[in-house]
Amino acid sequence: MKIVTQEKLKIILADLKSRGADAVLVSDFENSRSKNLRYLSGQPSDAHLLLFADGSTTLIVWDVIAARQMAEVDAIVDVGQFDRSYRAALVHVLTQKLGDSFSLEVLPDERHFLVLQLQEAFPRAKFICKPDGAAESFIKARMIKTPAEIAILKEGAQVTDELIDLIKPFVRRRRGLKEADLAVYLETEMKKRGAEGVSFETLTANCRRSGMIHQVPASSDEPLDLPGLALIDFGLMWKGYATDVTVPLIFGKLSPDQQRILEATQKAYDIAIGMIKPGVAAHLVAEAAIGHIKSQGLNMPYSLGHGLGLEVHDPPRLATKPTDPEVLKYWKELPLEPGMVFTVEPGVVNDLGGCRIENDVLVTASGVEVLTHSRSLFFK
Amino acid sequence: MKIVTQEKLKIILADLKSRGADAVLVSDFENSRSKNLRYLSGQPSDAHLLLFADGSTTLIVWDVIAARQMAEVDAIVDVGQFDRSYRAALVHVLTQKLGDSFSLEVLPDERHFLVLQLQEAFPRAKFICKPDGAAESFIKARMIKTPAEIAILKEGAQVTDELIDLIKPFVRRRRGLKEADLAVYLETEMKKRGAEGVSFETLTANCRRSGMIHQVPASSDEPLDLPGLALIDFGLMWKGYATDVTVPLIFGKLSPDQQRILEATQKAYDIAIGMIKPGVAAHLVAEAAIGHIKSQGLNMPYSLGHGLGLEVHDPPRLATKPTDPEVLKYWKELPLEPGMVFTVEPGVVNDLGGCRIENDVLVTASGVEVLTHSRSLFFK
Repeated sequence: MKIVTQEKLKIILADLKSRGADAVLVSDFENSRSKNLRYLSGQPSDAHLLLFADGSTTLIVWDVIAARQMAEVDAIVDVGQFDRSYRAALVHVLTQKLGDSFSLEVLPDERHFLVLQLQEAFPRAKFICKPDGAAESFIKARMIKTPAEIAILKEGAQVTDELIDLIKPFVRRRRGLKEADLAVYLETEMKKRGAEGVSFETLTANCRRSGMIHQVPASSDEPLDLPGLALIDFGLMWKGYATDVTVPLIFGKLSPDQQRILEATQKAYDIAIGMIKPGVAAHLVAEAAIGHIKSQGLNMPYSLGHGLGLEVHDPPRLATKPTDPEVLKYWKELPLEPGMVFTVEPGVVNDLGGCRIENDVLVTASGVEVLTHSRSLFFK
Repeated sequence: MKIVTQEKLKIILADLKSRGADAVLVSDFENSRSKNLRYLSGQPSDAHLLLFADGSTTLIVWDVIAARQMAEVDAIVDVGQFDRSYRAALVHVLTQKLGDSFSLEVLPDERHFLVLQLQEAFPRAKFICKPDGAAESFIKARMIKTPAEIAILKEGAQVTDELIDLIKPFVRRRRGLKEADLAVYLETEMKKRGAEGVSFETLTANCRRSGMIHQVPASSDEPLDLPGLALIDFGLMWKGYATDVTVPLIFGKLSPDQQRILEATQKAYDIAIGMIKPGVAAHLVAEAAIGHIKSQGLNMPYSLGHGLGLEVHDPPRLATKPTDPEVLKYWKELPLEPGMVFTVEPGVVNDLGGCRIENDVLVTASGVEVLTHSRSLFFK
């Protein structure tokens, strides 16, 4: 089932026409994933979608049986009819619908060689590719969740909260447990509760490894409960939608420096939550929270938060205003709006051990609703 | 730790120079993944790598602490120094090393807009992008496994075999079990044995869903043991390397049509295994196996197999010879070589229920070693 509403599709099509584009190419393949495909067509993955300016849609797939069950499109084209060449299938569909002189929009993340192939096949066609084009239209549509999406995200948040509540008793019972033990435990418990799986590889880090942003391996065989700042960063997929929380795990008595890291993180979190309401620009929230961390002489080299939806990194992104003039060209201020669902996850990256606290929040008409309830867990 | 050997790197660099390229850009980011990064540098993900023709390497990352632990490169550049603009960091590194007039190779799957940005920043530079360029060099290097890689792949295969052996007793004990029950069980058991996790989302399909290639959801709440052709397609990551098997699960007495599907699959599998030895062209094996399925009036709309390594879809690919002239331009016959590790997975896609049998094999000096031991499991 596609998620885009008629109302949102109208805006996307109007935007497309305003750029003079006759169609936009949306792709999702291994190593080059985008949930725009599922959002616009219901087809979950492994296909090209052509969305034409007249609103019609053609899907090119290898698994026609699956597509017939899931895709809501005007036409399904079997790439098997083109000896499994997506290039050939695209050339065929574009020629049939638009001739050889048209304007095709491709997304910034489209694979470069495919664009070169289409440019070669259609020397008279114009190709549009810009970050503030269709990519931005899709972001705008996807970042405001429908009531049905919000209901699912809240259910997922509730299950996530149940898992958070399991951490303390589990860790207490099993002193000396490995990082991976906690990860496996939570992953098993989430599936028992009906989650489809993790929304990303569960990151479990003892104080030796918590200073990295993304741990490799995600959860190791090292003991979790070394004295200091540890954390677990996990999420689940619930009916196709992602949750994502980070729980700080504090073992033993912290040194003054470690204590300062924990306090700066908590304070940055409180600052961010206190600012979130409709109309406030996303970058200002990010700058206030990250600014607090920096004011303590600490380092937070990532964004304050990211949207949650079909992807664990859905739009919008809560990042500071860029300074690179090339990036600024396409940057626009983003006022928060009711229906946005995103993480708030300030933290500190540090050789003494990192810290991060992360919850999922919904922007409401009057302010903010915190959907998950992660908080620092202390162990003697 | 990087995996590429000095010997292989020499060939990659010679290829690079033969195309007149001064450097090649290798990227791995969310939604645009490539294990070439890890293969060449040890950095597992989330970075740009510039491999220069003189063999030197510069890595651009956001998580410098993690990169210092894992990457084997000549220089690490913190994108934080460029206000987190990878574009700006790339322009800086390229300018420092190569000035403004150089030849940069980008891979076919590189994100299109990034290439446009670099082209704009370096109007005097030449950009090379072709499927038979560096992409092919990396495929050639990666598809022949080192003895250390083969040892790991064999360990993973052994654990995978242990899991296959668990399926029959588990399913027998719990008549009426859901698809997802079997998936959760195997995933828990693999982690108990030390696997890092799944190599892809476990696909469990009863006879109603087995006709699709990639089931959505991967494993559902439907009963698994409906009479007919079911299957489970799963794999695990073992020390960074993937395994992948499919086990046909046959419930009850098959109809003559279903029996024909099962027999065609088994026969295609036997044909493929019987042909694999050094020197035989990969496409001939694929054509023989798929040809048998087609000769039975049945449909197999995917490749016979794919390499296994850092990715579950590693090089090489065992596909039929393409017919699209645009694809044929870059196509080359691929003789099998000792050290290749790949899946053999013939199957049938059909409304009556699909079937697939899949094992992992190693090409040896004298022929083939079948590393995993999936086979049809029958339930009354």
